[in-house]
Amino acid sequence: MKRLLDTDSLRAMARGCAILGAGGGGDVYLDLLQALQAIEEYGPVPLMDLDELPGDALIMPGGGVGAPTVVIEKIANGNEGERLRDQLEHLTGRQVAALMAAEIGGGNGIVPVAWAARMGLPMVDADGIGRAFPEIPQVAMHLAGIPPSPAVMTDERGNMVVFQTISGDWMERLERAAAVEFGGIAQSTEFSLTVAQARDGATVRNSVSLAIRIGEALTNAPDNPLTALIAEIGAFRLVTGKVLDVERRMTSGFTRGTVVVEGTGEDAGRLVRLELQNEHLVALERGHVLASVPDLITVLDTETADAISTERIRYGQRVTVIAFACDPVWRTGRGLEVAGPRAFGYEFDFVPVEEIARATA
Amino acid sequence: MKRLLDTDSLRAMARGCAILGAGGGGDVYLDLLQALQAIEEYGPVPLMDLDELPGDALIMPGGGVGAPTVVIEKIANGNEGERLRDQLEHLTGRQVAALMAAEIGGGNGIVPVAWAARMGLPMVDADGIGRAFPEIPQVAMHLAGIPPSPAVMTDERGNMVVFQTISGDWMERLERAAAVEFGGIAQSTEFSLTVAQARDGATVRNSVSLAIRIGEALTNAPDNPLTALIAEIGAFRLVTGKVLDVERRMTSGFTRGTVVVEGTGEDAGRLVRLELQNEHLVALERGHVLASVPDLITVLDTETADAISTERIRYGQRVTVIAFACDPVWRTGRGLEVAGPRAFGYEFDFVPVEEIARATA
Repeated sequence: MKRLLDTDSLRAMARGCAILGAGGGGDVYLDLLQALQAIEEYGPVPLMDLDELPGDALIMPGGGVGAPTVVIEKIANGNEGERLRDQLEHLTGRQVAALMAAEIGGGNGIVPVAWAARMGLPMVDADGIGRAFPEIPQVAMHLAGIPPSPAVMTDERGNMVVFQTISGDWMERLERAAAVEFGGIAQSTEFSLTVAQARDGATVRNSVSLAIRIGEALTNAPDNPLTALIAEIGAFRLVTGKVLDVERRMTSGFTRGTVVVEGTGEDAGRLVRLELQNEHLVALERGHVLASVPDLITVLDTETADAISTERIRYGQRVTVIAFACDPVWRTGRGLEVAGPRAFGYEFDFVPVEEIARATA
Repeated sequence: MKRLLDTDSLRAMARGCAILGAGGGGDVYLDLLQALQAIEEYGPVPLMDLDELPGDALIMPGGGVGAPTVVIEKIANGNEGERLRDQLEHLTGRQVAALMAAEIGGGNGIVPVAWAARMGLPMVDADGIGRAFPEIPQVAMHLAGIPPSPAVMTDERGNMVVFQTISGDWMERLERAAAVEFGGIAQSTEFSLTVAQARDGATVRNSVSLAIRIGEALTNAPDNPLTALIAEIGAFRLVTGKVLDVERRMTSGFTRGTVVVEGTGEDAGRLVRLELQNEHLVALERGHVLASVPDLITVLDTETADAISTERIRYGQRVTVIAFACDPVWRTGRGLEVAGPRAFGYEFDFVPVEEIARATA
């Protein structure tokens, strides 16, 4: 066991997950409260390295699917994870040995910890993305050729839907439609996999540890959290200023919109525009790309360096926008095909944020 | 065995199903072609009375869910029934002994015959409604308290979704959303039941025989099919004329709209308006209700007395609109609650078509 996910580490993890969410993955606040309550009732959750588990053990990835905007007003029941686990075991004829966040970013990084506490199962120190992405097949498991089926979705009322699809795209379409019907968000599991597969490139490893480390870096530098954070994750500061404009809407089960940040201080006169689909997809300035998917773009409160999720951004907030490198798996040809700028409809090629920064400097 | 569903009886049945469709249930033409091909390849399908089967035998109801408008342009693959059956058997741990149309009306009355031929299974002489209705829980099984779950939906591509819902309304919402995603229609099974339940009021019995008898009545009276049909089913002629106006749209997985028929001959000067949601819901004249759900309203070609489904009605067609009594189960308090005028948003109480006719005469 690497460590126990207890109150302190969960609080740190939540701050880290928010930053790794790139604006999405769902607001962490309510999910953190649910996880804290679950570990209070059922005890802390062991965090295991993939090397500590048998290769044939089954991992259940999971989290919420839908529009993050809804997360803060439509609260999960708590027993969704057990229902998903029971159904997945029934479908596969195998026992689930550990849980994993489908995406470490945002509240979705925390959700499975609450489930794991209730089930007495460990979490693995890995996730499906190393950040958050809006669409279901945008996970490393998909890149590794693991099928999304059988997938299970449930809601807080007790409805359950099982999906067996011919492709990741069909999984996305059908699960999204069901999540919309459920009121904008639902809990689900897809891409169940063995520990051996998870070790063999089908997950992003050590991302739970990373989230905790990020949170601790913030906590340990109360006087200058922004500098500490940027150093910890090797981020690039895109702009510091205030939010000048927010346009946000819910369509087809996604939160979409744009945020404009007007530079202040040394950035006075600059205007940086973020375009988002659940997560921030691209940061633009006068038509030039400052950063884009699959790299992470996160909006921080300039004072606390806490991430502000896309659904909480408001006019007038004093923010600093940072960008940092995604996991290398997303910079491969296949990774860019699935989650690069063109996968989101942009007509430009991905350039790593560090190269853009170097060229600009 | 009551009889074999062969080429002749299927052709008669298709004409009868169209009339029992009350405009909906999907166009019968393509489904008839698929069923004829299936019985040519696999042999005719035995039609069994419910009393001929063991009480604990499992019946799989089935058909298409979606907007009938799409049926004529998005054709099923043929193997959907086997996929549904295999999955239902896996889910229930029981063997399917016979198939049944979820609704005898329209193409949906014929669809399971093609499946049954391919599987070498019999059809039971019963269905879930005795007509067609737009929504999934509008079946006698639901009135009898049989749960819709587990339900299975599949498409012609091979995708499959299993639904386990807390109510019929949630089944309707989730299946409808999936059907829309699949392109407007998909094949499904809900409300699986035993022969004992089917006998005990949970189905409308002898409806396959009725459909065949209606078709044969038309065939046997080539010179005056309209009169023969009206006599056979005890229908009331609402108006004879031509189609003056059709307004039809697809929304939320349903075909909705209105049809206006202008009387000709002895009906000159009359205007009858039909409102539809997949099926004709109500026939109105100068604000007065001539007939309404759950009774059947069917638009016939005045010459051939063949039913014209809601998606085939066009300006200028010479039509006769008839109405006739639904199965008594729909005139009970619970039946009207589920499929009476108020269930479709109308602010009036149901009056049986024969009472309206008597009052008008």
